[in-house]
Amino acid sequence: MSAQIIDGNAIAEKLRVETAAEVEAMTRAGLPRPGLATVLVGERKDSQSYVGMKRKRAGELGIESFGHTLPASASQEEIESLVKELNADARVNGILVQLPLPDHIDDEKVLNAISIEKDVDGFHPLNIGRLAQKGREPLFVPCTPDGVMYLIEQTGTPFKGANAVVLGRSNIVGMPAALLLVKRDATVTICHSRSKDLAGVCRQADILVAAVGRPEMVRGNWIKPGAVVIDVGTNAVPDPTAKKGYKWVGDVCFEEAKEVAGWITPVPGGVGPMTIAMLMRNTVRAAQYAAKKLA
Amino acid sequence: MSAQIIDGNAIAEKLRVETAAEVEAMTRAGLPRPGLATVLVGERKDSQSYVGMKRKRAGELGIESFGHTLPASASQEEIESLVKELNADARVNGILVQLPLPDHIDDEKVLNAISIEKDVDGFHPLNIGRLAQKGREPLFVPCTPDGVMYLIEQTGTPFKGANAVVLGRSNIVGMPAALLLVKRDATVTICHSRSKDLAGVCRQADILVAAVGRPEMVRGNWIKPGAVVIDVGTNAVPDPTAKKGYKWVGDVCFEEAKEVAGWITPVPGGVGPMTIAMLMRNTVRAAQYAAKKLA
Repeated sequence: MSAQIIDGNAIAEKLRVETAAEVEAMTRAGLPRPGLATVLVGERKDSQSYVGMKRKRAGELGIESFGHTLPASASQEEIESLVKELNADARVNGILVQLPLPDHIDDEKVLNAISIEKDVDGFHPLNIGRLAQKGREPLFVPCTPDGVMYLIEQTGTPFKGANAVVLGRSNIVGMPAALLLVKRDATVTICHSRSKDLAGVCRQADILVAAVGRPEMVRGNWIKPGAVVIDVGTNAVPDPTAKKGYKWVGDVCFEEAKEVAGWITPVPGGVGPMTIAMLMRNTVRAAQYAAKKLA
Repeated sequence: MSAQIIDGNAIAEKLRVETAAEVEAMTRAGLPRPGLATVLVGERKDSQSYVGMKRKRAGELGIESFGHTLPASASQEEIESLVKELNADARVNGILVQLPLPDHIDDEKVLNAISIEKDVDGFHPLNIGRLAQKGREPLFVPCTPDGVMYLIEQTGTPFKGANAVVLGRSNIVGMPAALLLVKRDATVTICHSRSKDLAGVCRQADILVAAVGRPEMVRGNWIKPGAVVIDVGTNAVPDPTAKKGYKWVGDVCFEEAKEVAGWITPVPGGVGPMTIAMLMRNTVRAAQYAAKKLA
């Protein structure tokens, strides 16, 4: 048996086309272009690159982007006051504060300062709290776990009553993914580095989400035949045959797992492309929400 | 084999003695008595009775209590403005808004208005969000799940790596209990009415927390030998032999479960007494926090 591949590139591209069409419909209707403000504090290369990719993608979809950078020495007050300016700026529909912030900054306070209606990253404490509660819906959901859910949906696998196992409990992927799965009526098990018999737990999973950052930890014999396997890991491992000297692998051993799973995401080209696609969708939603409020 | 009984009455009493001693130490040191404000909206008999018990218990421990009642017709604004008054009142260290609020009230907004330092019930959205996040600690934890954790601690059972199963995903018990167990490094499975093979899932549990409100649903053969069983259910079932015509039973069939479990809470006299005991402890902690801030 060989799993069907969940093609994140193709699915993200389809989402982008839909999002661009929404932007076009808005501008055709005489509405302003959706706007995304990015806030980058300090000079981390990875953060610069993420912000760059987000702004580039926004431009391709017809979304305006406003880039703000502050020095690594910026004070709590400076960052929060920039956020407040952006809250008040009608051209800005979404505010993305690139994490991590420097150590001297209380990131919870910064995220809390973002207007909840512009929290396109879904990390506002109120949105996180709502994720963890029945009967309350976050306005925005963190983009990577949102993308994970979207990919599972594409397989047509029912969530209700499914056994879902989430490996990893990070704030940005594992925990919100687990909470989203609970909201969709899955039975959810949250595992992590302290868990015992991970293989045995994983083998019960109809839906397995791996987000631990350990290269190829999940082996083929950890997987229930026919399961949906979503691999969030992106780990660089040495590869002398590759020109750059390394290659990207997931948290799942793809070669083994694809022989057992029903559906599986590759790395790269699975979850990766979804994150920015969801962010763009969130930004357009925020703009539609703002337009409706004004109408 | 017969389980050891976790005596919630005795444990809560010990906690109360400790809490009363803390209050006495504070007043001996010339500090004001801790103060708890209760806000009751409407005339629900059960809510009136809960608030009454909380105020009575506060009095017994030397905690001042300030009872506020508003009619069921009170507006959002009226409730929030009362909360703001209480935020500003230095005599008040803890604010308890009795839930549920009337249907026309947005309870999230009311809870959000409570100063996080006075949120002794632990339902402030920021505290709930922190519960769901690594590296962030809520100032206060909801009292019933806090009591559940306290009872498990008394058994000496290690949390780290334990398989914990939580039946029920309510905002006030199941979900926060699951999040607390994740924080303590348990592997946590969240089950609910849509879960399949509940018996099989429960049988894996080293720690089983039942909070679904279904009388005696968990049978003896659902329990792993030696497990810690915490029964949060309190269900009234008809009992013609009882004077009042009914008796209280938990979500666990106690008679069967006690033959298999290592530790078990009875109903009544297990989790029940813990809730108010934790609320009193939280109130005194809030007062100590306020005193330290002033010093």
